Amino acid sequence: MHAITIPEPGGPEALVWDEVPDPVAGEGEVLVEVVAGAVNRADVLQRRGFYDPPPGASPYPGLECSGRITAIGAGVAGWAVGDEVCALLSGGGYAERVAVPAGQLLPVPRGLDVRQAAALPEVTCTVWSNVFMVAHLRPGETLLVHGGSSGIGTMAIQLAKAVGAKVAVTAGSKEKLRRCAELGADILINYREQDFVEEIRQATAGAGADVILDNMGAKYLDRNIQALAVSGRLAIIGMQGGVKGELNIGALLAKQAAISATSLRARPLGEKAAIVAAVREHVWPLLDAGHVRPVIDRELPMRDAAEAHRLMEESGHVGKLLLITE
Amino acid sequence: MHAITIPEPGGPEALVWDEVPDPVAGEGEVLVEVVAGAVNRADVLQRRGFYDPPPGASPYPGLECSGRITAIGAGVAGWAVGDEVCALLSGGGYAERVAVPAGQLLPVPRGLDVRQAAALPEVTCTVWSNVFMVAHLRPGETLLVHGGSSGIGTMAIQLAKAVGAKVAVTAGSKEKLRRCAELGADILINYREQDFVEEIRQATAGAGADVILDNMGAKYLDRNIQALAVSGRLAIIGMQGGVKGELNIGALLAKQAAISATSLRARPLGEKAAIVAAVREHVWPLLDAGHVRPVIDRELPMRDAAEAHRLMEESGHVGKLLLITE
Repeated sequence: MHAITIPEPGGPEALVWDEVPDPVAGEGEVLVEVVAGAVNRADVLQRRGFYDPPPGASPYPGLECSGRITAIGAGVAGWAVGDEVCALLSGGGYAERVAVPAGQLLPVPRGLDVRQAAALPEVTCTVWSNVFMVAHLRPGETLLVHGGSSGIGTMAIQLAKAVGAKVAVTAGSKEKLRRCAELGADILINYREQDFVEEIRQATAGAGADVILDNMGAKYLDRNIQALAVSGRLAIIGMQGGVKGELNIGALLAKQAAISATSLRARPLGEKAAIVAAVREHVWPLLDAGHVRPVIDRELPMRDAAEAHRLMEESGHVGKLLLITE
Repeated sequence: MHAITIPEPGGPEALVWDEVPDPVAGEGEVLVEVVAGAVNRADVLQRRGFYDPPPGASPYPGLECSGRITAIGAGVAGWAVGDEVCALLSGGGYAERVAVPAGQLLPVPRGLDVRQAAALPEVTCTVWSNVFMVAHLRPGETLLVHGGSSGIGTMAIQLAKAVGAKVAVTAGSKEKLRRCAELGADILINYREQDFVEEIRQATAGAGADVILDNMGAKYLDRNIQALAVSGRLAIIGMQGGVKGELNIGALLAKQAAISATSLRARPLGEKAAIVAAVREHVWPLLDAGHVRPVIDRELPMRDAAEAHRLMEESGHVGKLLLITE
């Protein structure tokens, strides 16, 4: 088969579409013929040599895909050859075939085609596990989503609205904020022109955000804590603004607040399966009913993954960038 | 009545036993004739002018007491004049009488006298709310308690052991560690001579602590995160080592870890009542059965609160310092 390989870390040109050995479905796994993969910022880090695959994972990038099951390994129940699926991966989504632990498979939601489903696994699992399973966003609370027009952001807006929360977003342009508003965001903050701490306070009568979903890490740490409400929860899922930052523990304690930091990729199989099961239970019905939809910026041929990475790094996109194999 | 007042913030001598107006039981409150109060580090901060009482709280120090109910306000059910109780307070425990919201009352456990019960409200509510309600310590997990011989520490050891967890403690002397071991601590770390990160790793086959109960704040922040296990939870309840510290978000994220910071005093009435109710449900049966006991360093006359504060600041004590009114 073909896959995107990374012979040497580097810029987008480091991604090489090459002939590689076919994967095999091990015990508890299925083999998926990939129709589409999707791009995540973690793939960019991996390409640059900063995010090695965890032990046992595929060496090729790609943390999610959609496609059709072509083989079933030992001990797998509930799935059949020919099933259209999407999957959360610990690697290998930029490839024509990938072996997937059965606990990381999800069906293609009603009304979506198999390609579109590639946009779903990372964003639904990341948002559900962080905003709901860890930070316990409740109806009537306010969620602040940084990067509201990203793949994660566009899903976070929709899921938070679906459970009856109020949603604030930050984004870097009027057009991106307009797209967030279309998805249901109530409070629109242009981080290039406005101070999000000030804006969220004004929009919540001084209370602040009950939950913040943050991809910036160090750069926003102090301001995120300023922006939290009493009993607020800051869920960090990325460090685009740096790894180490000063934490004002006094401010955290005065608010009875909490910080969590998680990623999906490094988790053990059982935890991933538990998250996927929760997503299937809580998010899939919303997708099946059309209340929540994947937001896809554009589709590119998988062999042009380098171009997709350039787009990701330019940050002009809204929603997901897909890589199509056929 | 008499109470300890703080005419001007300062050293222990700032505490003045003085004649003050009697409190009145408002709606939803009872009046307690205080038999004993207990000393907390927060009282020392208040004495020094760094921790003002929250709005509506008594101006006198004292976050817990025990005694007898002498009057019942409107709308209070389940308590009667003459009941021996102990209580979580937002202030006013260093006094002969105090008005207490009914949701913050607890009965005196079987087998304890009313004075001893003054040692219980803060430590049981702090440990239960942080280690169990927030950090969800589970049987078989490892809890690291900093300051194992403090009032909080001695209760944390006993409660964690009672639910089947493994307990590591830090303390500053061999004698304090010996007392922690008597209470059930499994892993004893002298922080003056040993590196707790190294010791906890060695004692857990490299895994680290699942939950850390921390009173040091900034000074231990980075090392606490190093000492955490994957999916670990750091619960900060004090800042004896400073308010601001560098947080390595990358390390937190690599471990899927979380940090919470809480205090009891500033919480709204409803939250305090919920914690007290959970403590009555989960901790009181252990006290009634004698499986868990208050650890009391010594009793002093309440008018000598200054001396108790000196002892607290010298940190030579093990367990609680009580202030007796009669």
